[in-house]
Amino acid sequence: MMVCFFLEAAVVHGQEPLRSWRDGATKEAIVSFVERIVAVDTPDYVPPDERIAVFDNDGTLWCEQPMYVQMAFVLDRVRSLAAEHPEWNQQQPFQSVLSGDLKGVAATGERGLVEMVMATHAGMTTDEFADVVSRWLAMAKHPVYRRPYTECVYQPMLEMLDYLRSHRFKIFIVSGGGVEFMRPWVQRVYGIPPEQVIGSRVKLKYEVRAGEPVLVRLPELEFIDDKSGKPVGIQQAIGRRPIIAVGNSDGDYEMLQYVTAGKGPRLGVIVHHTDGSREVAYDRGSPFGRLDRALTEASEKGWILVDMERDWNAVFPASR
Amino acid sequence: MMVCFFLEAAVVHGQEPLRSWRDGATKEAIVSFVERIVAVDTPDYVPPDERIAVFDNDGTLWCEQPMYVQMAFVLDRVRSLAAEHPEWNQQQPFQSVLSGDLKGVAATGERGLVEMVMATHAGMTTDEFADVVSRWLAMAKHPVYRRPYTECVYQPMLEMLDYLRSHRFKIFIVSGGGVEFMRPWVQRVYGIPPEQVIGSRVKLKYEVRAGEPVLVRLPELEFIDDKSGKPVGIQQAIGRRPIIAVGNSDGDYEMLQYVTAGKGPRLGVIVHHTDGSREVAYDRGSPFGRLDRALTEASEKGWILVDMERDWNAVFPASR
Repeated sequence: MMVCFFLEAAVVHGQEPLRSWRDGATKEAIVSFVERIVAVDTPDYVPPDERIAVFDNDGTLWCEQPMYVQMAFVLDRVRSLAAEHPEWNQQQPFQSVLSGDLKGVAATGERGLVEMVMATHAGMTTDEFADVVSRWLAMAKHPVYRRPYTECVYQPMLEMLDYLRSHRFKIFIVSGGGVEFMRPWVQRVYGIPPEQVIGSRVKLKYEVRAGEPVLVRLPELEFIDDKSGKPVGIQQAIGRRPIIAVGNSDGDYEMLQYVTAGKGPRLGVIVHHTDGSREVAYDRGSPFGRLDRALTEASEKGWILVDMERDWNAVFPASR
Repeated sequence: MMVCFFLEAAVVHGQEPLRSWRDGATKEAIVSFVERIVAVDTPDYVPPDERIAVFDNDGTLWCEQPMYVQMAFVLDRVRSLAAEHPEWNQQQPFQSVLSGDLKGVAATGERGLVEMVMATHAGMTTDEFADVVSRWLAMAKHPVYRRPYTECVYQPMLEMLDYLRSHRFKIFIVSGGGVEFMRPWVQRVYGIPPEQVIGSRVKLKYEVRAGEPVLVRLPELEFIDDKSGKPVGIQQAIGRRPIIAVGNSDGDYEMLQYVTAGKGPRLGVIVHHTDGSREVAYDRGSPFGRLDRALTEASEKGWILVDMERDWNAVFPASR
């Protein structure tokens, strides 16, 4: 039997929650929403079981520039496996990767990325894939910030995750990226367990290999967890409508729409990449994380726009 | 911030855990496994995050005789919708349902059941479907026990769920039944939240209907969570190998195999329906919940066989 006492986060941590958020309308909107739904005996009270929040990953929790992290991973995989695949010299997006034409790669978008993931990992078991991911992340560095990708996460968002958890929220990642690419490190980096990650996925096959039951990754896309796929992924995995959705691009439009259209108090948040000096300023024209329609409609929908330059004291965590 | 103290279940409840389990080798095997993996500073210690248990539903947590509950639900749906579907008089399994040939229906098995679910709920939203399920369960009664199906759950298994939770296990249902058929009631009946249910599913489509974002159930099977589908469903939803698996039929064979082949301490349990007076005695020859191969191999695999007649003091909960 678990006996729990809920104390104020600030008291226990010995510091203010959301401390990397500057005081202002954005921080106030987040805090006042949470305080509203946890106030017992009020019409907006939401019981702990229903406190579900969904967060996009790329560009929302960690950096997606100059390209999706998973794309950097996949490019490295394509390069290391190219010798075994002479046919790639005639096939896109592989051809562009091998000729160093990153613009051509970018043009294939998230779908091109997922295709490369499938091609470079066919026949591998899920455990083997998790190992490859972990080994790559331990070694790879962000080309601009020169630190591990898992340290190119947004400090204010880590604090927002903590803040929500301190108010008994259950947090799911809902990402267009591959679910198996995120699971090996999300517990350590975000405090989110693998079973609370929803993402794109390839088909799996159960097999007994040399007496050992394994799950084999097939070279067949089963689900793309992006755009209208996000509400579908949420329903498949969670089975009820979250009350908070946080994203940063048009890939999150339907998720924001679905979550904030629910009855009762709802919060939609968009991280707007406005900070050209500490990070990268981008929105309507970016090949990665394009934010256009959702930016245009944010105000009418009541979605909170986080202005990274204005609202955040810090972007990345202090070096470890 | 949540501050938790873990107290002995027995102390808090004021009563012995697993009290509907008779003392003997089966109860002892369950208790000694749990005590072994929660003992800190021992080689078999499993940290709370990794304490994941998966339970089949039909025949493991609730009664599946004289037919799967979802089949009784679907037969009622087919009968009420038949006037709109004259073509069903020439199509199996609908023809058998409408002519009252339950043997013919049974012969179509779990796949026939899923086909009927799809046909009777095409175009319905997930919220509408949840309502239909809830209304049916509130009204329907088990044909033999004359009580709601949600009271035809196994009292000793409810206690096993409580016992595991008191030792910080996270419990998932992994059922061949439809995931959306279980989610409306599992929290109330088993204490398991909707996001911890894995099951068979139809394809979903995100739509905005009259300004309202909804998820529509399409008449297309996406996934059958049975046999080798169970380890696949587990990996898709959980992303790591559970340490306890509990089932009752050959549909659970691969799940038991996958879970118990993992490294470190593992527990596989099979509920064997041996009690012809309090419930129904069935195994190798039953059209629902056939237990043949898993029964034959249980001993060599080290899977615990629960003998319902011998091991359980009570089968169903006392009337409410």
